[in-house]
Amino acid sequence: MSKGVTVWFTGLPCSGKTTIADRLGEVLRGRGEKVERLDGDTVRKGLTSDLGFSKEDRAENIKRVTFVAKLLTRNEVKVLATFVSPYIDRRQKTREEIGEFMMVYVRTPVKECIRRDVKGMYAKALAGEIKGFTGIDDPYEEPVNPELVVDTDKETIEESVQKVLAEMEKRGYL
Amino acid sequence: MSKGVTVWFTGLPCSGKTTIADRLGEVLRGRGEKVERLDGDTVRKGLTSDLGFSKEDRAENIKRVTFVAKLLTRNEVKVLATFVSPYIDRRQKTREEIGEFMMVYVRTPVKECIRRDVKGMYAKALAGEIKGFTGIDDPYEEPVNPELVVDTDKETIEESVQKVLAEMEKRGYL
Repeated sequence: MSKGVTVWFTGLPCSGKTTIADRLGEVLRGRGEKVERLDGDTVRKGLTSDLGFSKEDRAENIKRVTFVAKLLTRNEVKVLATFVSPYIDRRQKTREEIGEFMMVYVRTPVKECIRRDVKGMYAKALAGEIKGFTGIDDPYEEPVNPELVVDTDKETIEESVQKVLAEMEKRGYL
Repeated sequence: MSKGVTVWFTGLPCSGKTTIADRLGEVLRGRGEKVERLDGDTVRKGLTSDLGFSKEDRAENIKRVTFVAKLLTRNEVKVLATFVSPYIDRRQKTREEIGEFMMVYVRTPVKECIRRDVKGMYAKALAGEIKGFTGIDDPYEEPVNPELVVDTDKETIEESVQKVLAEMEKRGYL
């Protein structure tokens, strides 16, 4: 039985977290691994419907997700979590609570994220229609010692996925 | 690999839910099963610290627990959940969301629960010092079609545990 782990993707909105984690999930499932994807959409209905985007609410959001990820991880699940999770202190707590944990920093420059702007959110933030948008008028604290950095403006999705897989193998999670 | 399931213990405070589920957990772990216990104490810190005991808060509490139990259950974990969970409609939603689900009604008469009163809560509720206490001034809606009923005033703990094990086997969860 292979070991559980939470692979935590952090990065700006539109940095590519979801795309990489979804593809990684497919690959892992294809290898017979148990996989759960956790992101804002999957947890909103069941876990965090009361929360907004203040610093406190973001922290509470991650706190609840951490609880779930911890339980899944210790039951041999590969948890692929994709959250902007902009604050170092909160990410650090998550790492400590879960234990078997790998942080992947999806280091896409904000300029490139604005260019992609999948849901038109950056445009709204830049126009001042949304307040507290990470990367525009809310801070993103870069990870200091992530297990892995992927640069989606220089790598293909497949290359990024392969890098994560290699790092998981190196650390004994595959 | 044996199937995941949530065994949901419902009943009045002090009915014996925790005692039975803890013992059942020991037995299952001894058989090599993956087990998680979910109860008010285990989820309070990570998941429900913002919630009180109003009907809305109780429902929200169970909603979040249901989300967690669902994810664990589909990853082959035996989830032993002990919550007063007094409302039929909320329990029914939990059943539907989780799918692989067994409800155990711990049917201890309120008189016996008051006699046990492990934490002195009934005394406080009867004295009017706590409001909205299930069984005293808040309703408990009895399950209509639970998979199993245990009567802790007539059975030993070991007998109740054996009944749950037998029911789990009968339903293909062991």
